[in-house]
Amino acid sequence: MRAADRETAIRAAALRIFRRKGYDAASMQEIADAVGLNKGSLYYYISSKQELLVRLFEGRAEQVLGEMDTAASRPGTPRERLRAIVRVYVLGVLRNLDAVHVYVREEHSFPRTALQQVRRTHQAMRDHFERVIVDGMRQGDFVERDSKLATLALLGTCTWVHRWYRPGGRLTETAVADDFAERAVRMLCA
Amino acid sequence: MRAADRETAIRAAALRIFRRKGYDAASMQEIADAVGLNKGSLYYYISSKQELLVRLFEGRAEQVLGEMDTAASRPGTPRERLRAIVRVYVLGVLRNLDAVHVYVREEHSFPRTALQQVRRTHQAMRDHFERVIVDGMRQGDFVERDSKLATLALLGTCTWVHRWYRPGGRLTETAVADDFAERAVRMLCA
Repeated sequence: MRAADRETAIRAAALRIFRRKGYDAASMQEIADAVGLNKGSLYYYISSKQELLVRLFEGRAEQVLGEMDTAASRPGTPRERLRAIVRVYVLGVLRNLDAVHVYVREEHSFPRTALQQVRRTHQAMRDHFERVIVDGMRQGDFVERDSKLATLALLGTCTWVHRWYRPGGRLTETAVADDFAERAVRMLCA
Repeated sequence: MRAADRETAIRAAALRIFRRKGYDAASMQEIADAVGLNKGSLYYYISSKQELLVRLFEGRAEQVLGEMDTAASRPGTPRERLRAIVRVYVLGVLRNLDAVHVYVREEHSFPRTALQQVRRTHQAMRDHFERVIVDGMRQGDFVERDSKLATLALLGTCTWVHRWYRPGGRLTETAVADDFAERAVRMLCA
């Protein structure tokens, strides 16, 4: 196995094990066993369990944020832009189910610098929601009165998806994302 | 200190410590220190860390469910009953912020029987939401088409409150509960 493939395999195994047992209960030995390495060799790829935790999230939120940037910059009414942003965000959660689960649970285990970085990205996502809500309030598209509370309510609905969505169940990822986009508009319009 | 007071103090300390560090990282020694007992004496009150985890939640969800039962059984239109249920549920989350936080994070650490019990209670809460949504769809109060998805969307909004609400901030518990009750109705009405 090439080093890059090995690293991918290590991250996938760690994510699976953190998801199942929690970060504190998971051991480097288990992760090594899962990828067929001995513990010493595992440390060739990764310096600590905490570094592994941080690495699991690298690029994920940034990618979703990039897609939100694109969606938000397209021309359209606030309703259309809100739909587009919600859709991208919900799909982002659905395509990273295990990672979102582990992040929500293990936020307190992150080292300070990594946590600040992730929180900046999350803040930028929240800003996208809030900006389009404020635009819609100004232009009279939304009857909403509290843009901050509306943002938190929407983010709650959209993020909580990671707790109940089961891949291969009744609804496809796209069906959930489309439904939640309409639902978001309704919540702000009355 | 009387035994009952001591037990209350132990639970409060455990909740605080589990909230801050996570269940796996918390030690019985720390909990003993926090209430001024030695570790041996702590085991007079509680047989294990896992028992302590389970005890932290005893009665909490059941009380909120009881209030939801009452709210749901009052006469009123589906809109009125939905408002009442959402209000009770959100206040339940807000009055148990640390416990909800620890539950969401540590669900996987619960012993099987305790988990089944908690999940039954949560299912009964979900049933309240779904029943009133179905009633409102039948009576034409709600334009909603998917009562299951609507229930999950609402529960997400209402449960996520535990991640962002800061006691003593801009909004009182009652203000958030009232706002979310209106917001729920809007989401289903269009």
